[in-house]
Amino acid sequence: MHNMKQKLSVVKIGGNVIEDEKALETFLSTFSKLDGLKILVHGGGKLATQLAAKLGVASKMVDGRRITDAETVDIISMVYGGLANKKIVAKLQAKGINALGLSGADGNTLQAHKRPVKEIDFGFVGDIDGVNSGLLAHFLTLQLTPIFCAISHDGKGQLLNTNADTIASEIAIGMSAHYDTTLYYCFEKKGVLMNIADENSVITPIDAKKYKQLLEDGIISDGMLPKLHNCFHALENQVKKVCLGDVNMLNEHEELFTTITL
Amino acid sequence: MHNMKQKLSVVKIGGNVIEDEKALETFLSTFSKLDGLKILVHGGGKLATQLAAKLGVASKMVDGRRITDAETVDIISMVYGGLANKKIVAKLQAKGINALGLSGADGNTLQAHKRPVKEIDFGFVGDIDGVNSGLLAHFLTLQLTPIFCAISHDGKGQLLNTNADTIASEIAIGMSAHYDTTLYYCFEKKGVLMNIADENSVITPIDAKKYKQLLEDGIISDGMLPKLHNCFHALENQVKKVCLGDVNMLNEHEELFTTITL
Repeated sequence: MHNMKQKLSVVKIGGNVIEDEKALETFLSTFSKLDGLKILVHGGGKLATQLAAKLGVASKMVDGRRITDAETVDIISMVYGGLANKKIVAKLQAKGINALGLSGADGNTLQAHKRPVKEIDFGFVGDIDGVNSGLLAHFLTLQLTPIFCAISHDGKGQLLNTNADTIASEIAIGMSAHYDTTLYYCFEKKGVLMNIADENSVITPIDAKKYKQLLEDGIISDGMLPKLHNCFHALENQVKKVCLGDVNMLNEHEELFTTITL
Repeated sequence: MHNMKQKLSVVKIGGNVIEDEKALETFLSTFSKLDGLKILVHGGGKLATQLAAKLGVASKMVDGRRITDAETVDIISMVYGGLANKKIVAKLQAKGINALGLSGADGNTLQAHKRPVKEIDFGFVGDIDGVNSGLLAHFLTLQLTPIFCAISHDGKGQLLNTNADTIASEIAIGMSAHYDTTLYYCFEKKGVLMNIADENSVITPIDAKKYKQLLEDGIISDGMLPKLHNCFHALENQVKKVCLGDVNMLNEHEELFTTITL
């Protein structure tokens, strides 16, 4: 017989929501009404790039990928850990959610290491080694709602810029030992699209077999590949269900979004 | 018979420590070795003013006092809640302290209201109404060390810039119901000085009677008045002891600092 686990939702919001006060308000309103235990993960969207530009810190790119130097870590700390995180926490408090803002350094919640240098030195970018799921479970028991910004740490005093999609999937995986966990990726589209030009061509259920078929048929676009990789990685590691869609996906009655299972 | 309460240290560090990487390292090393349960409170020193200048946000002053407009709240969130707080938390983690960074919005730990407009509208400045001491006690039980930045919130979604000395004394007062609490104000001097020109002229013990005498004799300088007011306010509200001095005050063997009692 199975133990009945409590339900937990891990929700990741896209940068487009963080950048836009009105979209953020709509999102937080919907998120606050989401039933049961929940954890939010956010980045900072273009706000970090905008602050860097204002401060005259050049965005360093190699082969189209961002390099996080020491100055950029400071900017990430300010924008993700300060501006965005505290704003979200204060707004959720106003909606009756006892939000608790966290970076991965806080409570040692996300343990990581600096990505090893191979062809490219990405700088202070973190690859996650562990999630302090015991402490997060304690927080949930205290009726707190953890709000994670996209920062981890190496345990040696260094903060690390870390992909928010990956943080969300790693947290969902870590929490699956304690909870019946659903991972929600909120982004600007209604889900995985059959036809990128048709916003309503959402592929509603995707399982491993269908995923394989979609890959073979070249339906999955470049931008979706790492996201879907995260989804299946989560499902292969005890996460119960993964959903992809826009903010309306979190409404009880919305049906048009992508549900992914093994 | 008295219940034996556990000891708790509430330590506030001055801006001069936050601004200087080396001083911060020394302070955090000393703080990490401080025995027993502890809570740290910090502001951001001149870092906020420096960021404001870089971003071209004018520092607005009325009668020599800073006005916190909406842009300034964002800067405070970035510098206090992001840059300074996350750096301190990551560095303490490296020293084996399970630090948890907090603004007053996080876990609704510091409830405040915007200071009422009288002759001056200070803008988004918070006067504290309450401390969520129950949650802080839970965190301490979980072996967490809360690290507060100087930000509170109004429960209606607004972050409020709040004096770090006041936050420290209000937290110490709030925690005194649960713990035998000592409040430490760390600043650049060795304590309250008899002669401002002599750094070693520290008045080591001050009680209410001596304080009255020092005031009458004009020994207490303008800058020290609000700090000492906070000290006696704390003592009159069940805080056991208040100490003023530089970082060495936290060393077990240092004796030259000011101890204040009723």
